[in-house]
Formats: sequence, C-alpha cells, structure tokens
Amino acid sequence: MARLNWGMIGGGKGSQIGPAHLLGARADGNFVLAAGALDVDAERGRAYAEELCVAPDRAYADWQEMLEGEKARADRIDLVTVATPNSTHFEITKAFLEAGFNVLCEKPMTMTVEEGEEIVKVARASGKICAVNYCYSAYPMVREMRHMVATGQIGKVRLVVANFSHGHHGDATDADNPRVRWRYDPAMAGVSGQFADCGIHALHMASFVVGDEVRELSADFASTIPSRELEDDAMVNFRMEGGTVGRLWTSSVAIGRQHGFDIQVFGETGGLRWASEQPNQVYYTPVGGRTQIMEKGEGGLSDEAARLSRVAIAHPEGFPLAVANIYVDLAAALKGEAHGAFPVAEDGLRSMAAVHQAVASAKAGGAWVDARPPSLR
Amino acid sequence: MARLNWGMIGGGKGSQIGPAHLLGARADGNFVLAAGALDVDAERGRAYAEELCVAPDRAYADWQEMLEGEKARADRIDLVTVATPNSTHFEITKAFLEAGFNVLCEKPMTMTVEEGEEIVKVARASGKICAVNYCYSAYPMVREMRHMVATGQIGKVRLVVANFSHGHHGDATDADNPRVRWRYDPAMAGVSGQFADCGIHALHMASFVVGDEVRELSADFASTIPSRELEDDAMVNFRMEGGTVGRLWTSSVAIGRQHGFDIQVFGETGGLRWASEQPNQVYYTPVGGRTQIMEKGEGGLSDEAARLSRVAIAHPEGFPLAVANIYVDLAAALKGEAHGAFPVAEDGLRSMAAVHQAVASAKAGGAWVDARPPSLR
Amino acid sequence: MARLNWGMIGGGKGSQIGPAHLLGARADGNFVLAAGALDVDAERGRAYAEELCVAPDRAYADWQEMLEGEKARADRIDLVTVATPNSTHFEITKAFLEAGFNVLCEKPMTMTVEEGEEIVKVARASGKICAVNYCYSAYPMVREMRHMVATGQIGKVRLVVANFSHGHHGDATDADNPRVRWRYDPAMAGVSGQFADCGIHALHMASFVVGDEVRELSADFASTIPSRELEDDAMVNFRMEGGTVGRLWTSSVAIGRQHGFDIQVFGETGGLRWASEQPNQVYYTPVGGRTQIMEKGEGGLSDEAARLSRVAIAHPEGFPLAVANIYVDLAAALKGEAHGAFPVAEDGLRSMAAVHQAVASAKAGGAWVDARPPSLR
Amino acid sequence: MARLNWGMIGGGKGSQIGPAHLLGARADGNFVLAAGALDVDAERGRAYAEELCVAPDRAYADWQEMLEGEKARADRIDLVTVATPNSTHFEITKAFLEAGFNVLCEKPMTMTVEEGEEIVKVARASGKICAVNYCYSAYPMVREMRHMVATGQIGKVRLVVANFSHGHHGDATDADNPRVRWRYDPAMAGVSGQFADCGIHALHMASFVVGDEVRELSADFASTIPSRELEDDAMVNFRMEGGTVGRLWTSSVAIGRQHGFDIQVFGETGGLRWASEQPNQVYYTPVGGRTQIMEKGEGGLSDEAARLSRVAIAHPEGFPLAVANIYVDLAAALKGEAHGAFPVAEDGLRSMAAVHQAVASAKAGGAWVDARPPSLR
Repeated sequence: MARLNWGMIGGGKGSQIGPAHLLGARADGNFVLAAGALDVDAERGRAYAEELCVAPDRAYADWQEMLEGEKARADRIDLVTVATPNSTHFEITKAFLEAGFNVLCEKPMTMTVEEGEEIVKVARASGKICAVNYCYSAYPMVREMRHMVATGQIGKVRLVVANFSHGHHGDATDADNPRVRWRYDPAMAGVSGQFADCGIHALHMASFVVGDEVRELSADFASTIPSRELEDDAMVNFRMEGGTVGRLWTSSVAIGRQHGFDIQVFGETGGLRWASEQPNQVYYTPVGGRTQIMEKGEGGLSDEAARLSRVAIAHPEGFPLAVANIYVDLAAALKGEAHGAFPVAEDGLRSMAAVHQAVASAKAGGAWVDARPPSLR
Repeated sequence: MARLNWGMIGGGKGSQIGPAHLLGARADGNFVLAAGALDVDAERGRAYAEELCVAPDRAYADWQEMLEGEKARADRIDLVTVATPNSTHFEITKAFLEAGFNVLCEKPMTMTVEEGEEIVKVARASGKICAVNYCYSAYPMVREMRHMVATGQIGKVRLVVANFSHGHHGDATDADNPRVRWRYDPAMAGVSGQFADCGIHALHMASFVVGDEVRELSADFASTIPSRELEDDAMVNFRMEGGTVGRLWTSSVAIGRQHGFDIQVFGETGGLRWASEQPNQVYYTPVGGRTQIMEKGEGGLSDEAARLSRVAIAHPEGFPLAVANIYVDLAAALKGEAHGAFPVAEDGLRSMAAVHQAVASAKAGGAWVDARPPSLR
Repeated sequence: MARLNWGMIGGGKGSQIGPAHLLGARADGNFVLAAGALDVDAERGRAYAEELCVAPDRAYADWQEMLEGEKARADRIDLVTVATPNSTHFEITKAFLEAGFNVLCEKPMTMTVEEGEEIVKVARASGKICAVNYCYSAYPMVREMRHMVATGQIGKVRLVVANFSHGHHGDATDADNPRVRWRYDPAMAGVSGQFADCGIHALHMASFVVGDEVRELSADFASTIPSRELEDDAMVNFRMEGGTVGRLWTSSVAIGRQHGFDIQVFGETGGLRWASEQPNQVYYTPVGGRTQIMEKGEGGLSDEAARLSRVAIAHPEGFPLAVANIYVDLAAALKGEAHGAFPVAEDGLRSMAAVHQAVASAKAGGAWVDARPPSLR
Repeated sequence: MARLNWGMIGGGKGSQIGPAHLLGARADGNFVLAAGALDVDAERGRAYAEELCVAPDRAYADWQEMLEGEKARADRIDLVTVATPNSTHFEITKAFLEAGFNVLCEKPMTMTVEEGEEIVKVARASGKICAVNYCYSAYPMVREMRHMVATGQIGKVRLVVANFSHGHHGDATDADNPRVRWRYDPAMAGVSGQFADCGIHALHMASFVVGDEVRELSADFASTIPSRELEDDAMVNFRMEGGTVGRLWTSSVAIGRQHGFDIQVFGETGGLRWASEQPNQVYYTPVGGRTQIMEKGEGGLSDEAARLSRVAIAHPEGFPLAVANIYVDLAAALKGEAHGAFPVAEDGLRSMAAVHQAVASAKAGGAWVDARPPSLR
C-alpha cells in the first residue's frame, strides 16, 4: 500500500498548529510530506521543508508557486493542508479545489458567509474533498457520543451545553502582545473575536454530537477588557432544527480555565458529558441510574470509536492524535475505503453564518436570528 | 450563656428542608427548639414537636396559634424559621415581623415583587432581623471567595458564571409525580419553574461573592418536557451595577448532574472556582500563574472563613453545616456580637424581581430588562 | 421522647476533637450535654461547661469528681464521652464502665494490649456499652460498602488497600512544635507514632468494610525525619482470617496529601473505592463493566446507608456528621432500638494488638507476626 | 536533514505494543521504517512490512535473516526496536548489539539477572546505544518532576510511593484466556507475574524521578486467584542508596483501576504527584503551602519538559507520544545532539535484579535483601 502524497501551506517553524498537522499526517503512516510552502518568508519556508525531507523542487516559495508546480506533476499531492493565517484560507482553498486538489482547511474556512457559500459551490463542482479541521470531532469518545445519540441511547436530545472558555487572553497588561491583539482587531480577525476563534469549535461539536444543525440563535457579546473592539466573552443560546435547546459559552478571560472545551448532552433517557482536557472518558448517566465512566478502548464501543483508538484502554491519547484521526479518515476517503464523518465545507459555511448572525444578534440586544447560511436554509 | 429560644413553622416529618434546619439550629448549641407548628396536619405537627422535646403548650396547631401563643409569653422565641410551602412565606413572615419576631424565611421569600417590597418595608419598620436562607452563601469557602474579591485579590471582576443545574426532573415518565409536577404548575409555583427554584440561589451567590447587584438581564427559558407550562431550563445573561458580565444556567433536566451548583469568578488579576458538591475547596488562579487548591481550614484564611469551620483542614463539612452557619451568624446578631453577612429581605426581594423580569425578558425574545425591584433602583 | 443525658470528659476549648463530639451529640437532638469535666484546668473546664449550658453542679473539676457526682444522681448521664489525652483513656473508661456508665472512648482506647484486654473484660462484665470512636465507619457510604460486601455484591474479597497518609507533620522546622513533637515521643505516644495515630483508623476501616479481622501482619516503619524516635511513615501488609490480602500505608510526611484516608476493596466480581475527602461517593466497578459513581442519598441504598443520611442526594455531609452517626447509633442502642454496627471495645483491643505487633514486626525486619490480641485468637 | 533508518522486530499486526512503536517512531519525522521482521509468521510479517512501505528485500522472515541482511547493507538501519515476546529479548538484543547496531529493547530486557549482566557488558563493549522502553519516563511532566528533584525544589527526598495496579486480570472466569494465563505461568513469564510486568515500570519511575537507585527491598507477593502460580498482587518496600524510603504496590486484580500507574514523591520541602491516566499535570505542594496544578506546556518549565511537548498548554498529549519521546531522544543521540536521559541497559539489568530479589524476599517471608545486580553494587 503506497503512501499518499501530502502537502502543506503554512504551518511553518514556530507556528502553533503546524506541529499538530505534521504529527497528525505522519502518525499512522498514511501520508508522506511531499510538497510545502510552509512560511510567508520563502527562504525560511524552503529551508524548513527540506529539513522535513521535502525534495528541493517541491519546497515552494509560496502557495501560488506550489499550485502551479503540483498541477504540473504526475505524482501531484493527494491532499493539501491549508494552515495559513485565517484571512487567506478562502483564496487558497478555492484555488486548490478548482485545480482539482483535495483540501484540508484550517478553521475558520473563510472570513465571510459569501466566501463560505463560494467554497461550498466550488467544492461540490470539483468533486474533491474539502475538509475543515474541526479536529475535536475526531476524538474516539466524541465519535462514541455521536454514535450513542444517533442510535437512540439517550433518546431525543432536549438540551446541549457546549463551552469553550479559557483564560489565556485574560491579562490586560498582555493585551498589546501581537499574538493576542490581532484576535480582537477587526482588521485582522473580522467581525468576531473569541466566538469566531473558539466558539465555533463548540458549535460544531454540538451539531456533530447531536446530529442536527442550529436553526436560530440569540447572542450576548462582551469585551471585558475595554480596549478590545471585538468580544472576548460570548454567550449564545440556540435552537436546533429538531428543537434541541442549546447553550454555548465561550471566553478568553476565564483565568484558571486552561482549555475549557466541554460538552454536555441531555436527552430523554440519559445524559453525556465530555471534556477536552480528559478526552478519553465520557460520563454517561441513564435516566434514574448511576453515572458510568466510559473509557476509550473499553469493550463494546462503536466501530467508529474503536477504529480511531491506537493503544489499549486507559492509555491516554491526546490532541495530536485527534488531528491524526482526521487524516486517518481522509486517507480512507482518498483510498475509497470506509471512513467516519469528518467535517466538510458545509460545516465551515455554517460556522461562518453562525458567527455573522451572532454578531448581528448581539448588536440587536440579543434578538433571535436565523443562524443558517442562505443556501442551507 | 443561655441558649436562644427557637421556633419553626413547617419542616415537618418527611419534609426535605426540615432536617437541615433542625440540624442547623442545633449543631452549635446556640438554639433550643422551644416552639413549633411543624405540620399542616395539626396533630401530626404536635406529635412531632413533642418528639423533638417541645413543651406541649408550645406545640402549636398552626402558625396563627403559634403567633398568638408566643406573643403572650415572656420567654417568647428569639427567632422563628419559616419552612412552609412557598406561597405561604409572605403572610407568615410579615405577621411575625409585625409582631416583633426575628425571622429566618426559606427561599423564595415571596411569590411576587409587590410582596417582596412589602416584606422589606415591614422588616425595616420592625427593626427586627428578616433573614432569607440562601444557605450556600454561608459555606466557609464561599465567604472566603467573597473576602478575596472584596479585598481586591482578583482585581475588578469582569465576569461571573454561576450554574445550578441538575437532572432530577428529567424523567418524563415521572413528570406527573406530585413532588415534581407542582414545580411546573403556575397555580402552585408562580411565574417560574426552575429559575425560581434553583436559579435564584445561583443569582444570589453571584451577587454575594462579587459584592455587587444585578442591574439588567436577558433570559431564554425552555420547557424541554412539553407538558410543562413553566421552564425546566433557563439561561440568564446579566450585567451588574459595576459592569461585571454575568452568565447563569439553570436546569432540572440535566441528567447526570446531581447538584450542579457552581460558580466561577474572573477578575483582572485572577480567577476563582467553587462547586457545591465539593464545598471545602476553592480553585484560585492568579493571572499568569498556576491554579492553587485552597482548602477550608488552611492557615491564612479570612476570619470569616475560619470562624465558620468546625473541624480541621480536609475534614469535610457539608450542606447541613452551611445551614448551621446561617444560624451561627443569626445567633451572633441576636446577641449583639460580630457576625458575617447573612442574606436578608432585600436579597429576597431582589431575587423575586429578577424572577419576574427574567420571565418578561424570555417572553420578549430575550430583550434586556431592568432586573431590579422598583425600590432598589 | 426525652433526650438522653450526655457527659464529656476532655474536649475543652481549643481541642481538636471536642467540637466534633459536641456537634455530633447535638446534631440530631438525641443528647443534651448534662455534665462535663472538659479541661485539665478545672476552672477553665467549669467555665466552658457553663458556657455550654451545663448546670453549675454538673460542671466538674475532673473526671474523678464527675464520676462521684454522677454516680450519686438519679438523672445520671446515659453516656459519657472520653476525649482526654490518649494515656488517660484506659483508667477513665475503666472507671466509668465499672460504675455502670455507658462509654464512648476516643481512639486509641488504651496504650497497651494488656489494658485493652482489661477494658474488654470490664465492658463485658458491666453489660454496658463501650464504644470506640472509629467514626469514619459511620459515614453512610462506608456502611453501604460494608453492606455490599456482606451481601456478596463483589464476591469474596481478595484484596483490601487502605491508606491514611497526610503531610501535616512534614515540616522538619516545625518538628519541635509541641503539638507535633509529642506524637513521636515514646514517653507520650507509646510504642508507635503515625501507625497508632492514623493507621489504626485505616486498619479498622479494612476490617469493618470487609467484615473480617486481621490475622497476621508484616510491617516496615520509617522515621523519615531523623530526630523522631517513632515512625512517621509505615507500611503494613496483612492477611485476614478469611485469606484476604491487605495493604496499608500511613504517613504524616506525605506533603500535599491533606487527609488522605481512602480504601479500595477488590473482590471476585467487583471493586469499590472510597475516599474520606469526598465521603459521599463510592466508585463501584463490576468485573468486566464500567465504573459507576454511587451517591449518598441515591435510591436503592441499604437501610443502613439511608438511615444515616440527613439531606438529599448530592448535598454533601461531612466529618462532623459521621461522628454524629456514631451518636445516632448509640442513642438507638441506649433506647433499645435497632441500630448499626458501631465500633466497640474489642475493636479498640484489636487495634492495640496490631500496633504492638506491627512495632515488633518492623523491629524484626518485617517478619510476619500474629496480629491478634491473645484473647481473640 | 536526512531521516534515520529504523527497523523493528516483532510488533506485528494485532500486537499490543507494535502500534505505539510505529506511531512513536513516525510521529516526529525522525525515522523511516526501512526494515522489519514483524511477525513470527514470516509471510504475515513480510506482508505487513510491505503494507508499511518497507522495501520487499528488507521485509525479512525473521530476526536472524534481518540481522544478516542489514549487516550487509551500506544503508543499514540506524536503530532496531525489539518488540518480540519477552523470552527472546535477550538473544536478539545481544546479537544486534554485537553486530554494531543501536537497539531499543522492550521491557523486560531479559528474563534473568545473568542475561542482564551480559547485555550490559555487550552494550558497553559495543559502544552502541542499548535503550530500554520505560516509556513513561519520557512524559514531559515526568521529566519535569525529575528536574525539580534534581534541582532541589522539594529538598532531599524522604519517601517515594509508586503504584501500578489495574484490574484487567481480575476475572477468574477469564483466567484461562491465553492472553492472560501466560503471564502467571513460570514457563512463559519466568519467576514473577505482575511485578515483572507492571511493577518494574513503577520501580524504574521511582529511580528515574528521585535520581537514585534501589539498594534493598522487602516483598510480599500474593496469588489472589488461587490457580495462578505467580503473583497477581505484590507490595515491595525498599530503600534507595541515599536513604529514601520506597513503597510500591502493583496488582492486576484491582478491579476498577484501569491503568493505575502513579507516583508520589515527598521531600523535605515539598511533594509531587503524577498519574499516568492524566499525564499532563503534576500536583506540586510546597511544604506549608497550597497544592499547585502544574500543566504541561506552561511557562517556566525545564528545557527537558518543554522540548518533549508538541502542542500548547492543556492540549493533552498521551501514551503514544511518550513512546515517541523515547524516539526523539534516540534520534538526537544518534545524531550527536543534546538529548534527555532515556533508560538504558543498566536500567534493564536493575529491574531484573529487583524482580529476582523480590521473589526471593517474598519466599523468605519478607526478609530484606539486596536489590542490586552484582555488577552494580
């Protein structure tokens, strides 16, 4: 079984997400890094690519050169990962899709709803994969929750509560740090700060686990550090198509929460709880019964959860392997094999619509608004 | 030092809150149960009172008889606890205050804002104590959090998140159980279900710890079990007088949460976290630093927290002793001694205003409304 | 139902265990403090007793005076608690038993095995209750574990692991603090330091939950702070009469463990885990199944566990109420009512034999020795 | 930077440890699987090797063929991993070392002390690396603990407590399952069951973190399932060269413990606690202070801990990446770069001596014995 050729744009030395993609693509031996335009500084990018064993002629100066170079090759890359700054995701993803490449795009997929609609259209026309890296959805126990809900093990879902709150932007004296400041600057971050950054992970998670989409929402945004133009704390209430009530809190000033991404799902006959800091357990409570601790790797889990775990029960698997699971599913899809439900362009579009509509709702004093992109209503 | 004479109305055999008051009043030896009208069934109430060593002539048939009986005595009770069904709190509390008794009223203090205003007026006129049993505020480590905020240890508070969510009303097949049903029946519960029951504990806690009051709010209510007229799940966003942002989630269908009452407080220079199921610890994180586990009974706590703890560090103290701490403070106040900040009529009034305004906001699609009672704006 | 008259010796102002007994005896209204010799300083003791509403003629100067005074009364106390320094437990307990009083003695019951044998003999001859305050055994969920084992819910017990380790004597610079030093001084503490102080709680717990007694043991003692003559850390391996393997670790230099008393019980068909810092839960795992979180107050618990809980599920109850449960059982026993299995003189004797034999084993390089007192082999 | 050529013996399809090595070697891009003899069934092994992109001429039938094949090549593998059944580790490791290969051997390195002595001798003579896969020592936060101890942050270590107890062999009805049974069969497992399997991980961890070696020990072994010839539960007390007291409990019948490997280290000025199921945190308590939660990825950690973490704070990293960290260190060593302290042949030898001496001690009723191999006394 030959390995698939993989390319990456962005993700250069010192980037936060680059190492996770490198490890994710490598972990299971499905992909070989064959091409890259890894850095906005062409020389640095080429040097890093060669350090990563990319052939010199495939260590590109920028994504445009890479697009041209790869298009011309018989052994062109099977998948390209877009891990560049957010505002460039749209044009790169679009260009590669149009040229017939499969793409894994970092979130957010685009900056506007219109761009999102465009990507969905292009992806559909291309017949290629356009995946979006909502990687938390690829944890084995997240897949297990989705499976449990889908197979009716907690009955109809009444309520879902998803939080993604941390405190790493809580130091006002650090607010001018460029690594923090851009996130709250509309020129770079767009219409939303924390909700667009972390909130959409939680929103996707809610949809993914419940197996339903958000129909309408009401939002309350706050900039708790006054110098910030964009929100650093947000609450979004929502309703899903099937009537499920949703609550989503996201914050970057919640000092003491490290990576407080968790979800609780409450149905007619049971409840589920999962937290990203301890991703290998799910707490499941049947109505009227005791809470049970489910473990990744235990007997009797769904094929989906079992397939995405590599080591025995209670040997923890972490975040990089959740990213790796996205690559496992993509490799399977590329080879025409059975695979799980990885997030795609429509998910990226839905997130963008929810972001823009949440901003609108917050500005309108929490008015309820349609959360859906025009094409998916 | 003589013991104080104490009376209770309601709290009869089999009631849920009665045992906590009995234990709370007895625990520290400050009070003797001297009088009681403990049950709606006069005979049962008298029998139980005598079993509890109340003299036969002070084992009353009902609260009216008790009021007359005690008024006539030289050794009249120093404090009366009102632990009757919610709808009767107002008239009993009012009558005893007017007759010059000190009162500890169970929450909710009243069913309407107007009644709440009336109690505040009567209490002020009487010069007597009118306490309301927001007992969670009397846990030593809750007092410690309040102290830390008041003394600036986490800076100005930006954000407070208080949840009180459980799943004990999550079984739809149990929805007709009278012990559950009344809570969602406007004829018995008033305008609100879960928010009026548990949410106001969380709201009081937020105000108590932050040391500020709620100014405005926006609410989203849901009846996730369709047969219910009143909400079993609610989200309330709020702003405090000093600008603190608030988030409050309360639910009774959160299957798997047993007694999910917790609070997180985020300030400019630190964060705090406390949960009622493990009430003897506070997690404190200074900005940029590590989370520290604070323990009830450790050295260096505030006088307030130290005074309300009875046994050494890491010997857990629980809910009944939080109730007891309310009695400790009341005993001190009655004796003219220094005491902590126990909740009073104004707090009860504020809760009632918040309940009614949250209902109005939810009906108005989440519109922001003034959360304050007219007299306290 | 009249209250029982209760007396206490020791437990004066500032003592560590006094408040727990006061609260424990008062909590449920079964006992009235009718007599006391509360302090080695007669005046201070009398003053404190009167503060606690003891009649002046029953506020005694010392235990001898109290013994004479109470013997002479028709309304003599129904129970006396002995909460004096360890070395005095024997003579006081013996004297009161011989005079026909019921006694609750703090642990350790005696300093030597011979004294223990004597107390057992005297207690049996008296026909009176001689209880020993292994109060942790009175937590509802500890009683539930005992019940589960007794009714075969985890099969034959193969292994029990009980630890009681803390770090409060871990500061060498504090080693000369009199409150710490006496514990490691043979003149005051006897033959053992940490094992006699905390270890015997764990040993009793193991026997109590498994429902079997220790037959033989092998010990390793260490004085990790060199100036100490007695051990501050000990490991005791043991075998019970029925073959259960036991492991017991106790330490006072385990810095970071606050009150690390926990027990794990492993049987043929399941395992149990309980920790004193979170005493309201038991973690139960059926063989081949998931761990379940059992909660104090949940439906379906044994009568024993249900009876000893005062407030609803997930309202925590703590250490003082475990002590109170000992008094609940004693009150029931004194009234001739059904009651649970509280610890008695034989348990106190067994602890003393285990202490002395563990010392002998440790001195003999871990040799296995008979752990039983001569009279109970 | 060229990748290193890596080979593996054993670790075939369906093996438990194979996937962890594959992922570990691949994760960071340092190694390419260039050769393999992956299965006792030659055909299956070759097929799997080719599936893993090994060139057909380097997909060997067995380790002997691989040894000859690789010796003959200019591009011979830089490192070989030995992941075969335990009883074969010795001869394979020895043969490859003697032929001048670098080796990473699974634990236990050998079955006897004599074999261990031989490997140490051969490794020293070869000048090659002979690493042993005590992979838990490569978790970032384990390295951090070692660093903290080494730099005096908790003072001289008084006491170390290391447990590795699980319940996966606790089902007697499963005792004849071949995957379980061999472990307790001297013909296959050697002189020890659970201690040789899991206990030696804990023993190595204690030495690794404390930075000292075990000098003498006293053991208590039990076969709690009577059909077993070898122990399924063991307690080992020990003393280190520098006087540190040690306690080590290991069990395979502790039903409910999933992967209960944890360590507590108590020094003069602080305590540390780490558990393998939540490997990204260390609980650190300075004497007289509060427990602090240290997080992988936080600022201010040692270079060693920082270097071995791939993603940001509170993004969990798990077991496969601990294995990967062994490969990271090996790659650095092979390239002559700075690297951390990975376990080597001397560690493997020490484990084997401890196993055999613990067996001897247990048979001698817990007698204290020298734990060291003859050559390292």
